[in-house]
Amino acid sequence: MHLHGYSLLAGHRGALGGATFRASNPATGETLAPDFHEALPAEADEAVNAAAVAFAQFRIVAPEIRARLLETIAAEIEALGEPLLQRCHEETALPLARLRGERARTCGQLRLFAQVVREGSWVDARIDPALPDRQPLPRPDVRRMLQPLGPVVVFGSSNFPLAFSVAGGDTASALAAGCTVVVKAHRSHPGTAELVGGAINRAIAACGLPAGIFSLIHGGGATIGLALVRHPATTAVGFTGSHAAGRALCAAAAARPHPIPVFAEMSSLNPVFLMPGALRERGPAIAQGLVVSFTLGVGQFCTKPGLVFACRSPETEAFLAALAAAVRAAPCAPMLSAGIHAAFLENRASVSALPGVTELAAASTPAAMPPTLGCPSIAVATAKNFLRTPALATEAFGPFTVVVLADSFDEFSACAHTLAGQLTATVHGDAGELAAAQPLLELLAQKAGRLVLNAYPTGVEVCPAMHHGGPYPATTDARFTSVGTAALLRFARPVCYQGFPAALLPPALRDENPLGLWRLVNGSLSRDALA
Amino acid sequence: MHLHGYSLLAGHRGALGGATFRASNPATGETLAPDFHEALPAEADEAVNAAAVAFAQFRIVAPEIRARLLETIAAEIEALGEPLLQRCHEETALPLARLRGERARTCGQLRLFAQVVREGSWVDARIDPALPDRQPLPRPDVRRMLQPLGPVVVFGSSNFPLAFSVAGGDTASALAAGCTVVVKAHRSHPGTAELVGGAINRAIAACGLPAGIFSLIHGGGATIGLALVRHPATTAVGFTGSHAAGRALCAAAAARPHPIPVFAEMSSLNPVFLMPGALRERGPAIAQGLVVSFTLGVGQFCTKPGLVFACRSPETEAFLAALAAAVRAAPCAPMLSAGIHAAFLENRASVSALPGVTELAAASTPAAMPPTLGCPSIAVATAKNFLRTPALATEAFGPFTVVVLADSFDEFSACAHTLAGQLTATVHGDAGELAAAQPLLELLAQKAGRLVLNAYPTGVEVCPAMHHGGPYPATTDARFTSVGTAALLRFARPVCYQGFPAALLPPALRDENPLGLWRLVNGSLSRDALA
Repeated sequence: MHLHGYSLLAGHRGALGGATFRASNPATGETLAPDFHEALPAEADEAVNAAAVAFAQFRIVAPEIRARLLETIAAEIEALGEPLLQRCHEETALPLARLRGERARTCGQLRLFAQVVREGSWVDARIDPALPDRQPLPRPDVRRMLQPLGPVVVFGSSNFPLAFSVAGGDTASALAAGCTVVVKAHRSHPGTAELVGGAINRAIAACGLPAGIFSLIHGGGATIGLALVRHPATTAVGFTGSHAAGRALCAAAAARPHPIPVFAEMSSLNPVFLMPGALRERGPAIAQGLVVSFTLGVGQFCTKPGLVFACRSPETEAFLAALAAAVRAAPCAPMLSAGIHAAFLENRASVSALPGVTELAAASTPAAMPPTLGCPSIAVATAKNFLRTPALATEAFGPFTVVVLADSFDEFSACAHTLAGQLTATVHGDAGELAAAQPLLELLAQKAGRLVLNAYPTGVEVCPAMHHGGPYPATTDARFTSVGTAALLRFARPVCYQGFPAALLPPALRDENPLGLWRLVNGSLSRDALA
Repeated sequence: MHLHGYSLLAGHRGALGGATFRASNPATGETLAPDFHEALPAEADEAVNAAAVAFAQFRIVAPEIRARLLETIAAEIEALGEPLLQRCHEETALPLARLRGERARTCGQLRLFAQVVREGSWVDARIDPALPDRQPLPRPDVRRMLQPLGPVVVFGSSNFPLAFSVAGGDTASALAAGCTVVVKAHRSHPGTAELVGGAINRAIAACGLPAGIFSLIHGGGATIGLALVRHPATTAVGFTGSHAAGRALCAAAAARPHPIPVFAEMSSLNPVFLMPGALRERGPAIAQGLVVSFTLGVGQFCTKPGLVFACRSPETEAFLAALAAAVRAAPCAPMLSAGIHAAFLENRASVSALPGVTELAAASTPAAMPPTLGCPSIAVATAKNFLRTPALATEAFGPFTVVVLADSFDEFSACAHTLAGQLTATVHGDAGELAAAQPLLELLAQKAGRLVLNAYPTGVEVCPAMHHGGPYPATTDARFTSVGTAALLRFARPVCYQGFPAALLPPALRDENPLGLWRLVNGSLSRDALA
């Protein structure tokens, strides 16, 4: 499968050429051909300008065409076959089986958004017909529906090179909403990005849509990314990555002459709370489940449990022993990049060096060490220590977690009170404990976007009810999700039509309801035509 | 009606006392007793802390209780009777008839939110039941619904001393969402604020709810306002006012350690586009309607039309003559405050001094001039001038508008292209013109939150389909409205429950659907219980 190494600007190669870079195989440290060309600022500019021009057309394309585009992208990605998975494997060291699953998730997500767009009720159409005889003043005819924002800049993330990268959740939801997209490719998988970008371009062409709907920009450092965020025609940003980068993008977006929203999904410790009854009932299974969860994808999931709170009980020692055994048996594996590996070692070391933190267990390191090998380990601290050491709540992105032992339920709850915003919070308890823990659950509902009972936070279902978001610093906008069908609500805004004759209204708002949408008519949901 | 002049902190008077100030009657320049005491930072702190404590209780109060609170507030405001209107009239110089209408709107809006809360489907409940047999992995039970954000800081606005002040749209929608509220009273109507704040306190007590749900803070300058926005427990901000103040609040919110959303409704020129056929059909009526619209409330409406674009036609001269006559006959009236009056004169003078701008007509100024008298006037410029003079698109908040004359439809459209974000955009045309103007309408849909055909932008209906918002600088978040029932969506975020037993789920998400909500079950809307 040939790779050319250039950005894709509205369907053509951007060949101005800046500095070049290569991907490297995290499992071997070898660089991978070909050279990739960093885009120049003029190319970033061209991409967003093209997205702005294409938007004028794409925003009013019939939902059926948008749905078909999403489905065609999925088909084109599948048509890339094994070579896509192979290149992605070389660039990320993620196992082929995982990547196969991730491709299925990526294509499934595109098709799910197609269904949502085709069904159409997501536009939240609302109609309040005129009341010409109302006293003291007549009511005009007022109708509104959601419409797309405009060009969206998406930053591909490293840890989901398919599902949260070029054709991932942000791109799929932006296109579904009717926005055009400029993706800043992640530097660690540029070949994967080029292949998927090509698939999107072919799908756009096959659907007869303007090429400017999509561009893919390679670039290094923050320069090109910030240029995309600051471009006057950019209307929103989707990002998954580090807290520092997310916050920098937000600051740049807020400082624009015309500020725009940034949906950054950044960092989360995904605390897990273990109650004595749960440990009594199934301590060893929980130990096993936790280790699977925190080592999944070499700990490089945004929902990795990074803090585990346990109420001490007679079963605690046995649980810790089971946990230690499971950690020792857990496999080491290459992390996504040398940078992520270095940050992991650094963050783990700084947490481990905090007063009162001791290592409970670590996986044994193989003799031949690939340069980016991530080896699972687990540390313990007391709740008293946790409460006086805020730095213990530092995310180490990788296969590491800290077990915090509380001497009482009050300490356990006090720990929960200190937590910042999280994507998820998980509680394990027996039926009686959970019923009694309602105040803890209510507290966690204020801290996290998703509460999980008697299970593990990793594994984010793509479905209408999913919420993958949470109060800062988990994300920059707790009101929106980046996973699940509600993700497209990030990229739309209401437009209201007052006094419009039928022929000038968008189809979604016409009396006869030609699209068969659920609409709020006079405040009541209905799929009927207006009488 | 006795006024004490102190802030209201969770039901009691904040009597630490800072500097004092008095309201003044804009119609006479006289100051009005009593002294009002600016809150000290410790009092602002106390208010938000109390709001945070009360939130833990209020967020889980049954919808019926929240609905009753909103209705009781409306009843308590009505129970204040004529003295409220009288004080408000003295503080704002707005006519009693207008204030009577505004009180009706304020109470109607509270009752409308009560209906929405009682019906309950606004929480956008979504349920994806477990699929234990799904391959390759089972699906867990995932459910989500909207829940309130937390304490909300509301800045009362000067131009709607009832409907967008202490118990106005922001407060009503925040309480409806289940948030607690701290209002920063507007300095120009502190007595009105105290009276309405007292009504809210009585309603809270009557409903047996914690007093911390609501506080009212008097304060001067930006200090106390910024302290409220920066308070760690504040989770969102509602604001209606000037662009400079709105942008400053946004910057402060974005620079917090934990950034929060600011819903600022700031400035809009509300352009009106007049096509030749419309002028031919009803030029004099449009002239009359425009003058009524831009002088309504002495031009102090956020939806005041501040720019009128007309395509030159044989009827243009007659239209301008009718406009001039209507302006000359329009009444002068006191503006809301000396500050608003001074800013109006300054902005009008700077627009009028731009090259190519000439005065078309002005209302005649009465002999005895109250100090803040606003007199309607209208200026004209050519589209060519408009296109090379960006400063012509400057809002002068008051009874002033600029007519821009285009020599061709292309010029007319070019003017539309240059416009920044707007709350509204209005087009007058005959049936054929409107049908042919679809590209202009599509362009305006990208510039404005509400499009109005053959009518006037002032008069914002409070209803489910209303959208009072628009791209920056009209507001800081085009995705949300500050008028209409959708306004409560600003103050809520989704929370997702995974693997919860029925007894631990919020009622909205239980299988049996005890609240009878519309819910998205497996992606389809339904009011049924789960089988």
